[in-house]
Amino acid sequence: ARTGDPEVVYGAGKTPAQVLGILRTLHERHPDRAVLATRLTGATTELLGRDLPDAVLDPVARTAVLGPLPEPRGRVLVVSAGTSDAPVAAEVVTTARVHGAGVEQVEDVGVAGLHRLLAVRDRLDEADCLVVVAGMEGALPSVVGGLTGVPLVAVPTSVGYGASFGGLAALLGMLNSCAPGVTVVNIDNGYGAGVFAARVARGRDR
Amino acid sequence: ARTGDPEVVYGAGKTPAQVLGILRTLHERHPDRAVLATRLTGATTELLGRDLPDAVLDPVARTAVLGPLPEPRGRVLVVSAGTSDAPVAAEVVTTARVHGAGVEQVEDVGVAGLHRLLAVRDRLDEADCLVVVAGMEGALPSVVGGLTGVPLVAVPTSVGYGASFGGLAALLGMLNSCAPGVTVVNIDNGYGAGVFAARVARGRDR
Amino acid sequence: ARTGDPEVVYGAGKTPAQVLGILRTLHERHPDRAVLATRLTGATTELLGRDLPDAVLDPVARTAVLGPLPEPRGRVLVVSAGTSDAPVAAEVVTTARVHGAGVEQVEDVGVAGLHRLLAVRDRLDEADCLVVVAGMEGALPSVVGGLTGVPLVAVPTSVGYGASFGGLAALLGMLNSCAPGVTVVNIDNGYGAGVFAARVARGRDR
Amino acid sequence: ARTGDPEVVYGAGKTPAQVLGILRTLHERHPDRAVLATRLTGATTELLGRDLPDAVLDPVARTAVLGPLPEPRGRVLVVSAGTSDAPVAAEVVTTARVHGAGVEQVEDVGVAGLHRLLAVRDRLDEADCLVVVAGMEGALPSVVGGLTGVPLVAVPTSVGYGASFGGLAALLGMLNSCAPGVTVVNIDNGYGAGVFAARVARGRDR
Amino acid sequence: ARTGDPEVVYGAGKTPAQVLGILRTLHERHPDRAVLATRLTGATTELLGRDLPDAVLDPVARTAVLGPLPEPRGRVLVVSAGTSDAPVAAEVVTTARVHGAGVEQVEDVGVAGLHRLLAVRDRLDEADCLVVVAGMEGALPSVVGGLTGVPLVAVPTSVGYGASFGGLAALLGMLNSCAPGVTVVNIDNGYGAGVFAARVARGRDR
Amino acid sequence: ARTGDPEVVYGAGKTPAQVLGILRTLHERHPDRAVLATRLTGATTELLGRDLPDAVLDPVARTAVLGPLPEPRGRVLVVSAGTSDAPVAAEVVTTARVHGAGVEQVEDVGVAGLHRLLAVRDRLDEADCLVVVAGMEGALPSVVGGLTGVPLVAVPTSVGYGASFGGLAALLGMLNSCAPGVTVVNIDNGYGAGVFAARVARGRDR
Amino acid sequence: ARTGDPEVVYGAGKTPAQVLGILRTLHERHPDRAVLATRLTGATTELLGRDLPDAVLDPVARTAVLGPLPEPRGRVLVVSAGTSDAPVAAEVVTTARVHGAGVEQVEDVGVAGLHRLLAVRDRLDEADCLVVVAGMEGALPSVVGGLTGVPLVAVPTSVGYGASFGGLAALLGMLNSCAPGVTVVNIDNGYGAGVFAARVARGRDR
Amino acid sequence: ARTGDPEVVYGAGKTPAQVLGILRTLHERHPDRAVLATRLTGATTELLGRDLPDAVLDPVARTAVLGPLPEPRGRVLVVSAGTSDAPVAAEVVTTARVHGAGVEQVEDVGVAGLHRLLAVRDRLDEADCLVVVAGMEGALPSVVGGLTGVPLVAVPTSVGYGASFGGLAALLGMLNSCAPGVTVVNIDNGYGAGVFAARVARGRDR
Ligand SMILES: Nc1ncnc2c1ncn2[C@@H]1O[C@H](COP(=O)(O)O)[C@@H](O)[C@H]1O
Ligand SMILES: Nc1ncnc2c1ncn2[C@@H]1O[C@H](COP(=O)(O)O)[C@@H](O)[C@H]1O
Ligand SMILES: Nc1ncnc2c1ncn2[C@@H]1O[C@H](COP(=O)(O)O)[C@@H](O)[C@H]1O
Ligand SMILES: Nc1ncnc2c1ncn2[C@@H]1O[C@H](COP(=O)(O)O)[C@@H](O)[C@H]1O
Ligand SMILES: [Mg+2]
Ligand SMILES: [Mg+2]
Ligand SMILES: [Mg+2]
Ligand SMILES: [Mg+2]
Ligand SMILES: [Mg+2]
Ligand SMILES: [Mg+2]
Ligand SMILES: [Mg+2]
Ligand SMILES: [Mg+2]
Repeated sequence: ARTGDPEVVYGAGKTPAQVLGILRTLHERHPDRAVLATRLTGATTELLGRDLPDAVLDPVARTAVLGPLPEPRGRVLVVSAGTSDAPVAAEVVTTARVHGAGVEQVEDVGVAGLHRLLAVRDRLDEADCLVVVAGMEGALPSVVGGLTGVPLVAVPTSVGYGASFGGLAALLGMLNSCAPGVTVVNIDNGYGAGVFAARVARGRDR
Repeated sequence: ARTGDPEVVYGAGKTPAQVLGILRTLHERHPDRAVLATRLTGATTELLGRDLPDAVLDPVARTAVLGPLPEPRGRVLVVSAGTSDAPVAAEVVTTARVHGAGVEQVEDVGVAGLHRLLAVRDRLDEADCLVVVAGMEGALPSVVGGLTGVPLVAVPTSVGYGASFGGLAALLGMLNSCAPGVTVVNIDNGYGAGVFAARVARGRDR
Repeated sequence: ARTGDPEVVYGAGKTPAQVLGILRTLHERHPDRAVLATRLTGATTELLGRDLPDAVLDPVARTAVLGPLPEPRGRVLVVSAGTSDAPVAAEVVTTARVHGAGVEQVEDVGVAGLHRLLAVRDRLDEADCLVVVAGMEGALPSVVGGLTGVPLVAVPTSVGYGASFGGLAALLGMLNSCAPGVTVVNIDNGYGAGVFAARVARGRDR
Repeated sequence: ARTGDPEVVYGAGKTPAQVLGILRTLHERHPDRAVLATRLTGATTELLGRDLPDAVLDPVARTAVLGPLPEPRGRVLVVSAGTSDAPVAAEVVTTARVHGAGVEQVEDVGVAGLHRLLAVRDRLDEADCLVVVAGMEGALPSVVGGLTGVPLVAVPTSVGYGASFGGLAALLGMLNSCAPGVTVVNIDNGYGAGVFAARVARGRDR
Repeated sequence: ARTGDPEVVYGAGKTPAQVLGILRTLHERHPDRAVLATRLTGATTELLGRDLPDAVLDPVARTAVLGPLPEPRGRVLVVSAGTSDAPVAAEVVTTARVHGAGVEQVEDVGVAGLHRLLAVRDRLDEADCLVVVAGMEGALPSVVGGLTGVPLVAVPTSVGYGASFGGLAALLGMLNSCAPGVTVVNIDNGYGAGVFAARVARGRDR
Repeated sequence: ARTGDPEVVYGAGKTPAQVLGILRTLHERHPDRAVLATRLTGATTELLGRDLPDAVLDPVARTAVLGPLPEPRGRVLVVSAGTSDAPVAAEVVTTARVHGAGVEQVEDVGVAGLHRLLAVRDRLDEADCLVVVAGMEGALPSVVGGLTGVPLVAVPTSVGYGASFGGLAALLGMLNSCAPGVTVVNIDNGYGAGVFAARVARGRDR
Repeated sequence: ARTGDPEVVYGAGKTPAQVLGILRTLHERHPDRAVLATRLTGATTELLGRDLPDAVLDPVARTAVLGPLPEPRGRVLVVSAGTSDAPVAAEVVTTARVHGAGVEQVEDVGVAGLHRLLAVRDRLDEADCLVVVAGMEGALPSVVGGLTGVPLVAVPTSVGYGASFGGLAALLGMLNSCAPGVTVVNIDNGYGAGVFAARVARGRDR
Repeated sequence: ARTGDPEVVYGAGKTPAQVLGILRTLHERHPDRAVLATRLTGATTELLGRDLPDAVLDPVARTAVLGPLPEPRGRVLVVSAGTSDAPVAAEVVTTARVHGAGVEQVEDVGVAGLHRLLAVRDRLDEADCLVVVAGMEGALPSVVGGLTGVPLVAVPTSVGYGASFGGLAALLGMLNSCAPGVTVVNIDNGYGAGVFAARVARGRDR
């Protein structure tokens, strides 16, 4: 991993034992730095809970973190639309924190219920980088992007059915956002958004 | 055409002379009822302006109307997002009016500028049917649908570029709207939305 | 939920215990109003049957309703094509009824057997809003829309195989309907069609 | 060309002079047999009209035929939906006739106006092979296929806009037809349908 | 079912008991005519084997036939490419036979081994209708169609991986066949091809 | 426009006279701030050159800027792959500069010629935000993203043919980048990338 | 350019004057080596014909070659299907020759006329590398690949209409070829196939 | 199989017993030549390990080889990007070796870590044919192709999620590679790439 960035283990397609082994090895090599594992299955989380008691596990985010977190610099605000978007939002939160940013979170602010979004409006402007997570039509980044000039990363999720085509509708919606200055990552890629947002927020830390 | 509904000429793929001829024939058959022509080219509009002085031409909507309009019943409100969506919104307006509804219009209320939408919020609830026209990410129907319980028809437009894929992004966005009770018509189909909305509004006329 | 509209629980991705808990909480808050739950798994239906004896369960529609239904106003007619479309049609029926409309249903009137459709022709015109449910080529709304001027909402279903692409063929067919005034909802979205149709029918109640 | 089948020139991408030259050469080689040219541009049709006075030109079908037609055997009935489908229907008519079948035609029998179709119902059963041409949602073959057991070839046309995606919606609709025994050719491929139908009809000639 | 055509039960999505019940009922109503059931699961085939000993079961075709077959008229030849295409080819065979045609079959004649195809060349011309079944690139109908002028129905199968996209590559290949007079049915739709081919072959019976 | 951000005119679909008029009006309202116009046609550029001599025109970027530029804060580095990507890269440059960032540019560093990229490696780390512009396979952001930890926005261009599908291949490539922390904007959306990068760079200015 | 490989100018998107200038400059730098220009417009070919009399122009291939050709090593055989595929086949021929291979060509050997292909069968085995060019269903590489074990590169062309989707059908067909050892390049990419085939053939030269 | 090429069993869709039986039969027929089986399930590998002790099993490649390998001629170098691409890379290795080429392998040289690739740069030029295996954005072939003039076959893998669409993003990326002379096979088709590369390498053996 790039100097300063944590080591990251991509859990998909790895056995519980493999993830456990890699986490241990990486932690021993740099005991003073956090190691992050993502996309963990239930079985892996269970094994880590038993055999790696020092790891901080988040079953919603499907992540594990081992070793001390870096000092938080800057502020990432993670905004998400529906309860089904929670796992992706949680992956953003953990990733950004492990990559050195301070992180706050606002949930359940769908575009069809503007009052909840308008209620947190001030917090949008106070962030150094926004990450907006939404599935279905993926409209939330456009609305948020119209309310603030803070750099905004949009994460489409695979939440939806039928013509959502596994997150494609949300992805296309975000790419075509009429709010200027919205950038987008892959469907369900909370990890990528978290890395990016942490980099932006750390640099803007004042 | 169904009893009570006006005759409609679909101008696409017809020569100016053909449109002129059909309009004349239909008008002579039912001089007491409006005839509507849609999707007119510039050349057709010009010819009609010269040879059919009684026709009401709308070069933005690309429509012509010949004969007396029916008494307006009920109220359709047409809401559109950007200036590029104007032709489709205008097609809705003319179509719904010719099909017997009263029609009002609000333009330029994109989701990235919520204040303009919130400013007309009261008018949303007063309508009998809403038609919401938007291109790009097509997010406007979700936001409007979250503000009111009036039946809402969404019209995706082909406005956009790149990954808008000729209106596909807006279409998918509207089909996946998280606001309950949003229905959708084909890309740029202001005509279809106008017919539908007029039927709903006329029936709800009180 | 919007004033007057019922609370709705979207069962997909929720555990049986979660659905049970939310239904109970919402019912206690408004014992005088129906609560609707959709997209229930077999396990959830079973649990509700045991622990919530007052709930009305429909295993075909995969819905549960708790609390008194509103007085029916207006008439929604739900027309469906094949037996495989039954679950979606049933979701429309329950949703529209819970949202305050009177509902009737006609099943098994595919376009390849016109006589059955023509036999119920009179009932089409008597409805305040039609909902037409069909999979495969999704042609039924065009045929029904040619027989009546009642507002018509089309619901494509994911019934089919091969080039039906999970309901995409039916969806595109309905969006391109040559019958004027047909609007469309997402694939398998009986809920959305039911909400919309109830709103239209209630408003047209005479 | 297969023994007995006529020679065919595919005019797309060929200059007027090239088409003229090939037609002349093929005709000289077999003066007793028809040669067919398809997909002719306006310029080619004009040149042929001037320099090949014996050729029978059909500007709607965009075809030219040179040399004597074969004795008609069997009966192909070509049914089409809207006026915009006329060019493709005409290509079927000319092709099937040149390939040795008797051909009849019924136009303007869209699914949204069933009465016109029901009025010609008897003629459907009298044909040896049906070719059904339709754009937009492509529903006509399902309805016709439900009325008769005669072999039916469906031709999707590129007529439509927006989500018709150049005829894709009609193509998918026809491939998913719920009427048994419907086969399909490429979008706008009146030629292929005509060849196939002529082969079937000639073989069924009694 | 249309007069003369057998009753057909589509097994997909029905329980074993449902299929058994429908087969029994239909057979009792017309004991002198075959009933066909398609797309049977292993469990349904097993139940039918036990409780309906008179049914003829084909586990490869996933079909069951109950009652006497009609006299065969005309000849359908079913040609398939690879061993994985066998289930679809077998569905064609059973369907065409039950619908009154004589049926023969040639297997394993892929385009990458022309000698096997050329070895059966004579049999192609002797058929009244050809059905050509192939997955992957779906090239077989073009090659067969170049060898004979007999009406040819192509059936794409979902055999393949990666960019075969569940049969889409084969479907597109067949729709674009450069051999004139090839028609196509839905992916894996051996039933539809069988019905169509039987109709053609019966009519050409001499 | 958001406080501090410049007014922007989207030239696509506007007549030369309309663009001229809007630029003048906006400039008069805020003579102390730059106004930006993008997507200008040749005709519009020509008219502005004649009637608005104070505007700075960039025919490659298809932009016009009127009024004084803001003081540059932070550093945006725009890296592009091929000469055909120049218009999009130039749109990024102008947009970011008008939105208050300092901008530098490196051109012609395609992935198939790594030496040119490695030669500018040091400049990558010195930037506050990178914008990487590439068409065809869109691989450049992955390679650049592997060389530096600076926030990186990728812009796919519609450069390419055949299976590039108007920039779709590049878009998908960038969304799937294996380099962590790459975000993406719409195809050819140099404007969006420029706004975003300027916001990041201004915030990181030290 | 890689040592030994010629310089190549991609003509698409360049003015005639630009192409002329680049060709001259490159030729002056290496007068002993061929320079290749591809994708030339008619206007560019005309200008080169006038101002660069030493250039060898091929208006079908849309190429120009300036400077002496390298000694041919090995043998590339270019096989194409229909007359419309000629430009792409010609681009392969010129490119492979300029890149140092001997090149032969066989045209008009579509899969629907096997006799023509079987007549040249011996020449297939004598080649060091085959390039097979075909549009529409793209079946030719499968048939050729079944006849020989020589390395085979397939080039899909955009020839076709309707569901050929600009060459997509041919591309998918070739990627799914059931003949082992077929590789594929982009739609219409005769240049890429020529470079690759020349590299293979030069290395196999005996 | 073509003379000299080994027999190959495609294990997908075959039972363990079937694969075992075919392997035995083919081996008995040609005991002096290797037989290859690919796409083996875990159950098949297990059965072969027990009942066919002479077979060489590779559980990563999911292959089995029975009988003596041919003398290696020429050199294929297989380069792969990430650890998840290992199964496809291993299938290439085994296939090319069984088809008579010498094979070497380099793993874990993703484009986001150029140093690892640059470290093996010399080995690229020493190969007779390169096979480059990569998922996600599929950028590796472009970078490798820019470093060497050796014939290069690219294999996209289905590794990735979201907008990788099962390997489509990698496939499109490789087809649009800006490095000249890159050819591509189907997603996950290590077998096809191995056959092709062995043919090229054997012919270039010096
Ligand atoms: N959730 C995720 N989505 C995408 N990429 C990830 C994710 N988690 C980790 N990665 C990437 O995967 C790499 C590690 O892959 P591996 O060596 O297979 O564990 C890390 O360096 C990250 O760049
Ligand atoms: N803008 C439009 N979009 C879609 N359909 C339309 C439009 N305008 C008219 N139509 C339909 O076209 C029919 C008339 O078609 P035609 O007879 O070809 O003029 C009308 O009955 C309408 O149903
Ligand atoms: N079958 C359904 N399809 C689509 N949306 C639904 C469905 N059922 C409920 N919903 C929506 O989901 C919301 C409740 O979501 P939740 O809070 O996750 O239970 C409701 O307000 C509805 O708008
Ligand atoms: N309209 C058409 N659509 C598709 N194929 C056609 C059409 N007209 C002719 N063809 C085919 O094109 C072949 C002649 O092509 P060509 O030699 O290029 O003129 C004929 O043998 C037909 O198979
Ligand atoms: Mg959402
Ligand atoms: Mg818009
Ligand atoms: Mg149906
Ligand atoms: Mg039609
Ligand atoms: Mg096959
Ligand atoms: Mg590029
Ligand atoms: Mg071809
Ligand atoms: Mg990879």
